Amino acid sequence: MDNESIRVTVWNEGIHEKKNEAVKKVYPEGMHKVIAEHLNKQKGIKAITATLDEPEHGLTDDVLKNTDVIIWWGHAAHEEVKDAIVEKVQKKVLEGMGIIVLHSGHFSKIFRKLMGTSCSLKWREIGEKERLWNLAPDHPITEGIDEYFELEHEEMYGERFDIPTPDKEIFISWFAGGEVFRSGCVWERGYGKVFYFRPGHETYPTYYDKNVLKVITNAVKWMKPRIMKEHTAPCVKPIEKI
Amino acid sequence: MDNESIRVTVWNEGIHEKKNEAVKKVYPEGMHKVIAEHLNKQKGIKAITATLDEPEHGLTDDVLKNTDVIIWWGHAAHEEVKDAIVEKVQKKVLEGMGIIVLHSGHFSKIFRKLMGTSCSLKWREIGEKERLWNLAPDHPITEGIDEYFELEHEEMYGERFDIPTPDKEIFISWFAGGEVFRSGCVWERGYGKVFYFRPGHETYPTYYDKNVLKVITNAVKWMKPRIMKEHTAPCVKPIEKI
Amino acid sequence: MDNESIRVTVWNEGIHEKKNEAVKKVYPEGMHKVIAEHLNKQKGIKAITATLDEPEHGLTDDVLKNTDVIIWWGHAAHEEVKDAIVEKVQKKVLEGMGIIVLHSGHFSKIFRKLMGTSCSLKWREIGEKERLWNLAPDHPITEGIDEYFELEHEEMYGERFDIPTPDKEIFISWFAGGEVFRSGCVWERGYGKVFYFRPGHETYPTYYDKNVLKVITNAVKWMKPRIMKEHTAPCVKPIEKI
Amino acid sequence: MDNESIRVTVWNEGIHEKKNEAVKKVYPEGMHKVIAEHLNKQKGIKAITATLDEPEHGLTDDVLKNTDVIIWWGHAAHEEVKDAIVEKVQKKVLEGMGIIVLHSGHFSKIFRKLMGTSCSLKWREIGEKERLWNLAPDHPITEGIDEYFELEHEEMYGERFDIPTPDKEIFISWFAGGEVFRSGCVWERGYGKVFYFRPGHETYPTYYDKNVLKVITNAVKWMKPRIMKEHTAPCVKPIEKI
Repeated sequence: MDNESIRVTVWNEGIHEKKNEAVKKVYPEGMHKVIAEHLNKQKGIKAITATLDEPEHGLTDDVLKNTDVIIWWGHAAHEEVKDAIVEKVQKKVLEGMGIIVLHSGHFSKIFRKLMGTSCSLKWREIGEKERLWNLAPDHPITEGIDEYFELEHEEMYGERFDIPTPDKEIFISWFAGGEVFRSGCVWERGYGKVFYFRPGHETYPTYYDKNVLKVITNAVKWMKPRIMKEHTAPCVKPIEKI
Repeated sequence: MDNESIRVTVWNEGIHEKKNEAVKKVYPEGMHKVIAEHLNKQKGIKAITATLDEPEHGLTDDVLKNTDVIIWWGHAAHEEVKDAIVEKVQKKVLEGMGIIVLHSGHFSKIFRKLMGTSCSLKWREIGEKERLWNLAPDHPITEGIDEYFELEHEEMYGERFDIPTPDKEIFISWFAGGEVFRSGCVWERGYGKVFYFRPGHETYPTYYDKNVLKVITNAVKWMKPRIMKEHTAPCVKPIEKI
Repeated sequence: MDNESIRVTVWNEGIHEKKNEAVKKVYPEGMHKVIAEHLNKQKGIKAITATLDEPEHGLTDDVLKNTDVIIWWGHAAHEEVKDAIVEKVQKKVLEGMGIIVLHSGHFSKIFRKLMGTSCSLKWREIGEKERLWNLAPDHPITEGIDEYFELEHEEMYGERFDIPTPDKEIFISWFAGGEVFRSGCVWERGYGKVFYFRPGHETYPTYYDKNVLKVITNAVKWMKPRIMKEHTAPCVKPIEKI
Repeated sequence: MDNESIRVTVWNEGIHEKKNEAVKKVYPEGMHKVIAEHLNKQKGIKAITATLDEPEHGLTDDVLKNTDVIIWWGHAAHEEVKDAIVEKVQKKVLEGMGIIVLHSGHFSKIFRKLMGTSCSLKWREIGEKERLWNLAPDHPITEGIDEYFELEHEEMYGERFDIPTPDKEIFISWFAGGEVFRSGCVWERGYGKVFYFRPGHETYPTYYDKNVLKVITNAVKWMKPRIMKEHTAPCVKPIEKI
């Protein structure tokens, strides 16, 4: 797959943008559109979008078959996502597809399914300052990112974040109100990579921030599947004579 | 909870022992009874049993409330275990309960739910020799275990075992037929500990083996919950002035 | 070793307390004395002290032989610690002894030797507020510790802390000046446990703080060696016929 | 550095090849030459060699400055390698250089320095069969490697291998004599990657094996430094007003 584009599907439940005027003002066509547009400007990436209200939430077998990395944003409608679709997405991740879970996606069915934990956390929405410290300057995800970057106004997420010990921590956030958070974490599940990235409250222009977009773009590139392979449990013959 | 007994519930689907004469011969009352009897001989442990055919699979709210560590054996009837019960068991693990998943339990709903992966593997049932190498002689689980122990006849499980990177590997198995397997692995999920322990095919007297029983007993002691606490996602006030 | 006391040796270079009036005022007999006195008040712990200026830095073969857990504080004189002594301490850790490295001990020879990295970090000494978030409420080290605790005045240590990925993160600190730090981390090396615990600048009464003392005491108890065993590289006979 | 070649230095103590006729017969010019020749046939890789008997063991400041990945083979003369050189190599790894440690290099000063452990293991030299199981088919190191590969005759290394828990296990070996071994492991130290790869006894033609060479080549490509940066411990000003 080396010379082909990375095929990204940006999934958004797409609720807040329709119901909330404040969100509509920031993201008239939805956060997914802003992210996909940015990705489509990058060499070697082709992004499409999918939303909850489409048939099969826009994640048909055909779409999933042609997705290398999926990006997931959800909040108000986690429970409306059909279990059958979630299972398909998980299966595809285990086979090699990358998944970037954004912000309130921490409580999505797919993230909890991949983690096996409650994924609970503390939160507060007063638009305080967040500073993300870069713990992994040598990691592909932080290419072009300084030792930290700031978001002037964000929702706060605070520890304890109930997740399995990450394979690697990429960012830890400092919040003006006094909390900290493991804001960028990676895990492997099956042959697929999982990246949780905290920023992105719907009422702030976070997905226009150049650092946030850079991190997402870097993650997409890093997550390009190396293999895509089903998991089977074969009965095998002995290799040695017994 | 320091001076109280550890309360263990040994769960078994209890199918093979009823339908298969060979299994009935080895475990007339089921594997769960053999394990529970052994545990009940240990100071500080009180074990009960529960099976698939009991109401709520024997895992009522009351039973779960009074369980510190659950042991899980299943194979033929994984899909018959109700999702609602599996969710309760997972919730309890995340709150602090320990879980020991045995042998073919690798494909149980509860183990896959806690791991987030397919948990697939290779297998072969010709009763070959297994040698479990002790990688963690300093870990509570291996107290009294030598640098290795052998099981003369066992089903073979071979890599690649599709699990998340374990927090710690306790045993790696060598099989006469030429395979290897990560036979003892621990993870944390929420406040609970998970221990996967490979041996235990239903047609062999594995759960009478003194080393196997010692490992299970050690694991039970090590998994005694330190806290038992629900996971919540509270909205919190800033600690600092903003 | 179950019914015996845990034998702790609190090591301190003991420089600042002699040369600096401000430090002498806070710790007239040295930080090691304050820590050892607290530990000696705990049931099941017997603590002694050792310092740089004693013969063999107070860490003779006999002292090391009778130490279950060593606590290490150093800053001004890291390079004066003899390599031969450091090697003996490392050997003992690999054999099973626990080691708690405090604050500026991050740059000690023994910590860098156990980590294999530079252990560098950012720092600032203006006595700002530190808040340590408890990421592991189920871990023995945090018994009796709330979801966070504060130190009104401390030196700041900031990321990126150049350490190997910890086996488990216990605390992450928030600093008033805007930084974060992985303030409590555990690793295993050989059969021994390593706990790095950040707080403890010599000009502040940190080692009188009840939470700091509780964490150190908990860590001592948790680090009690389960085995004490030399590492050898034996030539072994085949177990199987070849 | 994206369009430039990866600069590899293959280091060998070069003792056995001179003193032992059996080794000379298999590797007339030394194992380092065979490995370097293979790497030089690969697009995008330029390999040189260095040996113990050269000035500064062939690892001058200039050579290290121009090395992206170092490969290390040693056995008989670990103690003859100068500490000052080992420290320079470690410093370079922490700054970003990759290091592949081969076979008996497990006891080299540089590997023990990076691990912090004794790196001891069991061994036996009767030329038995080794089968390396591929646990990470999605990892760059195993590109083109099947689910396992065999070496008909190799020295045996057996667990317990005294190393820190690897960030990821790539291979586990099965040996005909009954042992298992974590034969391919990766860790990060500073900004550099460490890969330990077990095969390579000097009396067998292991470094002519196509799978062994493929793994080494893949590892070299994967270890290409993303950054090359010194570690410092700066005193920093507060970012926030205090």
